[in-house]
Amino acid sequence: MHSIDFYLTAFISYLEEKTEAKEPRNLYEPMTYILDLGGKRLRPVLTLMATEIFDGDHKQALDAALAIEVFHNFSLVHDDIMDAAPLRRGQMTVHEKWDVNTGILSGDAMLITAYQLFENYDAKKFRSLAQLFSATALQVCEGQQYDIDFGNRDDVTLPEYLKMIEFKTAVLVAAALKMGGIIANASQQDQNKIYDFGLYLGTAFQLQDDYLDAFGNPKTFGKQVGGDIIENKKTVLYLNVLENGTVVQKKELLDMYSIQPKDPSTKVETIKGIFLESGAAESTRTAITEYTGKAFDVLDGMLISKDKKEVLRTFGEQLMGREV
Amino acid sequence: MHSIDFYLTAFISYLEEKTEAKEPRNLYEPMTYILDLGGKRLRPVLTLMATEIFDGDHKQALDAALAIEVFHNFSLVHDDIMDAAPLRRGQMTVHEKWDVNTGILSGDAMLITAYQLFENYDAKKFRSLAQLFSATALQVCEGQQYDIDFGNRDDVTLPEYLKMIEFKTAVLVAAALKMGGIIANASQQDQNKIYDFGLYLGTAFQLQDDYLDAFGNPKTFGKQVGGDIIENKKTVLYLNVLENGTVVQKKELLDMYSIQPKDPSTKVETIKGIFLESGAAESTRTAITEYTGKAFDVLDGMLISKDKKEVLRTFGEQLMGREV
Repeated sequence: MHSIDFYLTAFISYLEEKTEAKEPRNLYEPMTYILDLGGKRLRPVLTLMATEIFDGDHKQALDAALAIEVFHNFSLVHDDIMDAAPLRRGQMTVHEKWDVNTGILSGDAMLITAYQLFENYDAKKFRSLAQLFSATALQVCEGQQYDIDFGNRDDVTLPEYLKMIEFKTAVLVAAALKMGGIIANASQQDQNKIYDFGLYLGTAFQLQDDYLDAFGNPKTFGKQVGGDIIENKKTVLYLNVLENGTVVQKKELLDMYSIQPKDPSTKVETIKGIFLESGAAESTRTAITEYTGKAFDVLDGMLISKDKKEVLRTFGEQLMGREV
Repeated sequence: MHSIDFYLTAFISYLEEKTEAKEPRNLYEPMTYILDLGGKRLRPVLTLMATEIFDGDHKQALDAALAIEVFHNFSLVHDDIMDAAPLRRGQMTVHEKWDVNTGILSGDAMLITAYQLFENYDAKKFRSLAQLFSATALQVCEGQQYDIDFGNRDDVTLPEYLKMIEFKTAVLVAAALKMGGIIANASQQDQNKIYDFGLYLGTAFQLQDDYLDAFGNPKTFGKQVGGDIIENKKTVLYLNVLENGTVVQKKELLDMYSIQPKDPSTKVETIKGIFLESGAAESTRTAITEYTGKAFDVLDGMLISKDKKEVLRTFGEQLMGREV
């Protein structure tokens, strides 16, 4: 086993080696552009790491890792169009730098390119990887659709919200890990377990993202604290108040979520107050702890050495160890 | 071997059996909607037919045929967004009936669904089919990008245009046929030959589409005759004048292509006159005959029975036999 930094470096040099601007340039340049914007490269690193957890060679996992990263970036390009987002990682989004049509078509080409990256594997692995990839990619689309639908509904339940973030975020983390298992010929049981580990951890991570958006440390949280509140986003905190808050707390929250003041600081503070008083903040922290705990429980049941469990556990702790 | 009508009926009942509106509805309903709009079902019928040309059973080809049709409709949904087209087959386009975001996301889900349809084949066939599918799908994207790029360029050459229509249209026809060969375990040589047959025939068909848009019989040509001229589209006829016309013909054509009169009838007639006088019309007819001839030549070299060659030849003749 190597360190996370080792896998990250290995992945980034492979990415640089593989991304070349082919013709027609307007189709392939946006692909290189978005892939070069950076990001944590969390998912591809997981694929490399999982491969070596199951005693495979991370070099054999580079194509699958790249497929996962290309797919993730495809989803960012199309999601940014849907959200009319001007910025991604502090830079212009593809549809801003080029135009919407370029974003649509380059995104399509990225999705196809991701599938092509499995072609270097033998027929059986190709099939397993592509099958997992398709099922996952479709869930990500479904998650995005639920996310859009929820914006227009006022009766979203917490279980529905959990399913949405599971589909939109956690399944790709889970699949990234399972692909390592497929490449390293892990047993079906271990493949399923590492998948579940990723699913629980990915869900915990996304819940924490909702939590930190309101209560994170502005110095260490990457985004603007209070951003979700300002945009009236129905996060797990919001839904928790509606499900468990008092009549007064619910009414105040709904009132606050119907306004968009020029200076949002009072609104943000008021709503954070409701999140705290209603127990939504605490209940979300509990959920995060529970999901993280479930991930580590699955880990314990895997038939891999103690050292390797430790690697995954450390990774999980580091991921969840952002300042709460 | 069965008749084309038989394959068409078999495909349509399979399509009806397979398309169900799953949840979330906003993701899957547009898929069912566009697939139910009809169309000639040319490509899936070719897959079924090609399978039996090589002594396979068309039933085994139904999933691949559906994958081809789902992909074709995915490309229509995304292309219609890019072209801001309000109508498709006389009905509202997906982005008109729903919205652009729905069109993008449902299209993405259709592309993934197409890949999933290969999952019922054994690992080796799955890999061959998916590999051919990816290469083809990427070429279709490249063709669409060239088409967009050509709209903004005034130095497009005829060979570039031919490559564009080959990528945008012909490769999918060719792949639809080759998939039949893969499913029926045809020899690599025969697979390549039926692919080339489709490539030449698909190119001839698209060139004929350009030709009929100006010179077709309004009663039998499905679209508005003169539509390309009214929209100032750089078709093979237009490029032919620029490449082979006199200085005066070129100037007149460029002048005419710079205006958009309310009543386009004089413009259409003038430009048709230029197409005829410059030899562009004749030269396009020659190209159509040449490509059709190449398709039939490839056919002659295939190691299949005379009867089966006759089936493909009749199909080609019927396809190209639209009133010129």
